[in-house]
Amino acid sequence: MKVFVAQQNYHIGNFDRNLELILSALKRAEEAGADLAVFTELSVCGYPPRDFLEFDDFIRQCEAAVDTIRQHTHRVAAIIGAPARNPDPKGKDLFNAAWVLHEGEVKAVVHKTLLPNYDVFDEYRYFEPATQWKVVPLFGHRIALTVCEDIWNLGDNPLYRICPMDELMLQSPDLMINISASPFDYDHDEDRKEVVRQNVLRYGLPMIYTNAVGSQTEIVFDGGSLAFDASGTLVRELAYFREDECLLDTAELLQPATKSDHSGIQASVLEKDMRVKRIDDPEQIIPYLTAVHNMAQVHDALILGIRDYFSKMGFKKAILGSSGGIDSAVTLALACKALGPENVRAVLMPSEFSSGHSVDDAVTLSENLGNPYDIVPIRGIYDSFLRTLSPIFGDLPFGLAEENLQSRSRGNLLMAIANKFGLILLNTSNKSELATGYGTLYGDMAGGLSVLGDVYKMQVYALAEYINRHGVIIPQNIITKAPSAELRPNQKDSDSLPDYALLDMVLFQYIEKRRGPREIIAMGIDETLVRRVLKMVNANEYKRNQFCPIIRVSSKAFGVGRRVPIVGRYLG
Amino acid sequence: MKVFVAQQNYHIGNFDRNLELILSALKRAEEAGADLAVFTELSVCGYPPRDFLEFDDFIRQCEAAVDTIRQHTHRVAAIIGAPARNPDPKGKDLFNAAWVLHEGEVKAVVHKTLLPNYDVFDEYRYFEPATQWKVVPLFGHRIALTVCEDIWNLGDNPLYRICPMDELMLQSPDLMINISASPFDYDHDEDRKEVVRQNVLRYGLPMIYTNAVGSQTEIVFDGGSLAFDASGTLVRELAYFREDECLLDTAELLQPATKSDHSGIQASVLEKDMRVKRIDDPEQIIPYLTAVHNMAQVHDALILGIRDYFSKMGFKKAILGSSGGIDSAVTLALACKALGPENVRAVLMPSEFSSGHSVDDAVTLSENLGNPYDIVPIRGIYDSFLRTLSPIFGDLPFGLAEENLQSRSRGNLLMAIANKFGLILLNTSNKSELATGYGTLYGDMAGGLSVLGDVYKMQVYALAEYINRHGVIIPQNIITKAPSAELRPNQKDSDSLPDYALLDMVLFQYIEKRRGPREIIAMGIDETLVRRVLKMVNANEYKRNQFCPIIRVSSKAFGVGRRVPIVGRYLG
Repeated sequence: MKVFVAQQNYHIGNFDRNLELILSALKRAEEAGADLAVFTELSVCGYPPRDFLEFDDFIRQCEAAVDTIRQHTHRVAAIIGAPARNPDPKGKDLFNAAWVLHEGEVKAVVHKTLLPNYDVFDEYRYFEPATQWKVVPLFGHRIALTVCEDIWNLGDNPLYRICPMDELMLQSPDLMINISASPFDYDHDEDRKEVVRQNVLRYGLPMIYTNAVGSQTEIVFDGGSLAFDASGTLVRELAYFREDECLLDTAELLQPATKSDHSGIQASVLEKDMRVKRIDDPEQIIPYLTAVHNMAQVHDALILGIRDYFSKMGFKKAILGSSGGIDSAVTLALACKALGPENVRAVLMPSEFSSGHSVDDAVTLSENLGNPYDIVPIRGIYDSFLRTLSPIFGDLPFGLAEENLQSRSRGNLLMAIANKFGLILLNTSNKSELATGYGTLYGDMAGGLSVLGDVYKMQVYALAEYINRHGVIIPQNIITKAPSAELRPNQKDSDSLPDYALLDMVLFQYIEKRRGPREIIAMGIDETLVRRVLKMVNANEYKRNQFCPIIRVSSKAFGVGRRVPIVGRYLG
Repeated sequence: MKVFVAQQNYHIGNFDRNLELILSALKRAEEAGADLAVFTELSVCGYPPRDFLEFDDFIRQCEAAVDTIRQHTHRVAAIIGAPARNPDPKGKDLFNAAWVLHEGEVKAVVHKTLLPNYDVFDEYRYFEPATQWKVVPLFGHRIALTVCEDIWNLGDNPLYRICPMDELMLQSPDLMINISASPFDYDHDEDRKEVVRQNVLRYGLPMIYTNAVGSQTEIVFDGGSLAFDASGTLVRELAYFREDECLLDTAELLQPATKSDHSGIQASVLEKDMRVKRIDDPEQIIPYLTAVHNMAQVHDALILGIRDYFSKMGFKKAILGSSGGIDSAVTLALACKALGPENVRAVLMPSEFSSGHSVDDAVTLSENLGNPYDIVPIRGIYDSFLRTLSPIFGDLPFGLAEENLQSRSRGNLLMAIANKFGLILLNTSNKSELATGYGTLYGDMAGGLSVLGDVYKMQVYALAEYINRHGVIIPQNIITKAPSAELRPNQKDSDSLPDYALLDMVLFQYIEKRRGPREIIAMGIDETLVRRVLKMVNANEYKRNQFCPIIRVSSKAFGVGRRVPIVGRYLG
């Protein structure tokens, strides 16, 4: 059987576009002589459709798309992802399903069993889990067909009591196919390959694994579809962070040419929380977070995240505030790469507290990148606010209100230019700032999309180095100078925050690894520091609650996957 | 057995406060001669603790609180709500449990079976469902003890396959006790009473039902704990929207004095979506939404929501922009009632486009309410922005950018005064505006808490009438004048939006009832209008995504309970 693997970039709820992508791939599959084209999880509607699944109209459109695809399957069969209605009046209305279409007919509908309901996932909100399993016969093969998470329990994943693969094996399949929408994070890609390989080794069967690609606002799907032969050898790996496709011959997968060596295989990568790796030596955290391998992936993920957000929303041009600091420099460099420098407008907005080099550095940066920029001093606006407020503020000393006024004046200016010219404001805050609340609501926290909101400050430096790997794009002075918000004379981040290497280490323990103060202190980190940092994180939940979507690159980003009460007094 | 019912206002993660509340009630129970004190769901940590449950330190604090309470139970037993660890390595780490404590010992731990995972609920994210049921013997009684949702399936709720009450009945209990944290909405209160009564009638046993009270940021718990005797007669109903307690004698519940008439009982109030009532006649929607009974409840819920947000966050004083329009007038009146007029600062910020009556009306309102107010014209700031932007804007005509600049200048001023004096900005946007995106990000959409974000415009009018029920507080002119944002000459809401009665009718169908365009049009509403409104709702998801928490009073509020993708192209 010749299998065409289609790794495509769908758009949630954009049925016309998704259908067009699927039908054109089906046509290419036919031209390439394929017997079967395999798409990804919920391909007809895009993943995750979230509460759209509660609308009958939405499900009807999914059904209409499936119906159209069905009518386009003649000689070539298709496996596509779409919701299926639950005929049982008991249970949720829908299944998350893989549809097998061939010769103009629905040959099989396979329901997903293991419904992820952690981090960004809410599948139990919408879907009923499968309780029956049936191998799909196709072109002489007996296929163990599953959807995404269903290969993530090999009997030892504590989250699940059922192993759908074990159930399917009772029916003697000869090939495994899994259709996924498995999001990227720099903790996760190796896990995924390892899980596929472990299924192959456990059952001694080849597996074709398709994964979605493309970003859906905050969630990045990185592609990297896989084919393993029966011996556990990786035969094919599709591109990461872009659409890709290939033709496979199952005969080659079933009869591997080489016998690979599996002596180094881990017993299991699955843990109770499979998304969090264990890094128990605090000294290793920053080197791990800033590793070049991780940074290269984060770089590509962020560019895809920016590009897809703009293209799917129908936007072309971005704007951002360029301060001469490292966060805005890295954001600007990524945006120029994603959208083209001609589509990114940088605005330099110096105040009386800006240091001389800030404007110079920002100008040099934009000259290196070739993007348009404006210099718009905020002095007049700031003074006008102070004049208007003077009857109310009286003789009260300069303080937080005045600092925030500068930041918010800049936010206003950026939004005004954005509104005037139809630009989208990119936010430049990093994860360390967002965690500690070191930012101004409606000021530097404004924007439609956060590029670095899941990137710790130490990682922002590493990203800058990565961006400069073939030559200087970000001026060295931007990388080496002490970080400052420049909202009062001689201000430095270190006036308000611990050293970033220390801060990020504690934040990673608390946010990604969900370790409380007792556990973090037990790792040998100063108790006062730990409590101070954790208190900042919890006290600023209200700010993050109003923040824009953040492109997710870690196993635990702020936003939809991290659900923390605002009134929480819990400090650990 | 004498039962002390404790309906208390807990604070998420504030273990000291919650413990103090529980221990003081336990003491009063003892003094009143009670045998048993019954508290509410997850009382030791507050509900919903959300991702705090993923922290081992948090669970340890819950355990420590349970332990302290246990040591305080001597003669008087206590039933409290707290997480319990799952000893089985398979499944989620925790159960949502009711702990029976007596004579310094843990007598029983009852796990919740039915875990709500819809709307604002995420219980399946954290908890393992119970698969065993055991009646609890106490003071000669055999108690069918359950947690919240477990009484919400009498066999006919399609969401659930198990009926824990049926299971418990196999062990011949003589009394039912349920501990809940069941949130308020104006669609829900009657359902709850009806569900408790139906359990009583089905099993012929009395039920004591405790419900939490108090607001946790957006979610309002309204109390209204209940006791029904075995005949189905409501014997006791605790206060709504405030703490309350009572002493009950189970002897009186078991042997009802009167036999009540149940001829009028509905077969079932439970539907597949139990949170959405069916209103199929479009003409009935606005009368239903604005009914005085609903408005009275919404009024009390919003006041509790404001008061608790401030007290739990440690805030005292609020600020808001008072435009002379109905939304800010109603918000101001509610805030004055919740916090005291001396704690609410109104700021009037007229522009060149403000009509003459706007300031007068706002001044009259504050004089009626007795709250402090300032008048801060924005002309100077607005001009200063235009001057600064003139090299960039050139001769481009007045438009959205200039309108938003005014709104954002106001937002900046409010935040500056808030920052200077330690005030919290209350947002005044209503649900109709938020739905259609008729508001300015970082401008009139700024604020720490949204008071009216779950109240449609037509309901805001009804609330104003309700507030004026004993005499004029909100000047009649504010109620009768045509709504306007006053951001350009002679602007009216009706320039951009359909008539509010029509708009709210469509919005209610789409948001609360999750009906798509096909279904709404089939109700006889103009297709062009329906498609226009739904397009506005979907196109503005990105704005709501950055909005502050909204006090939830309907069955479907924007925010945590409504999870819609931003890039979604689906238009209904």
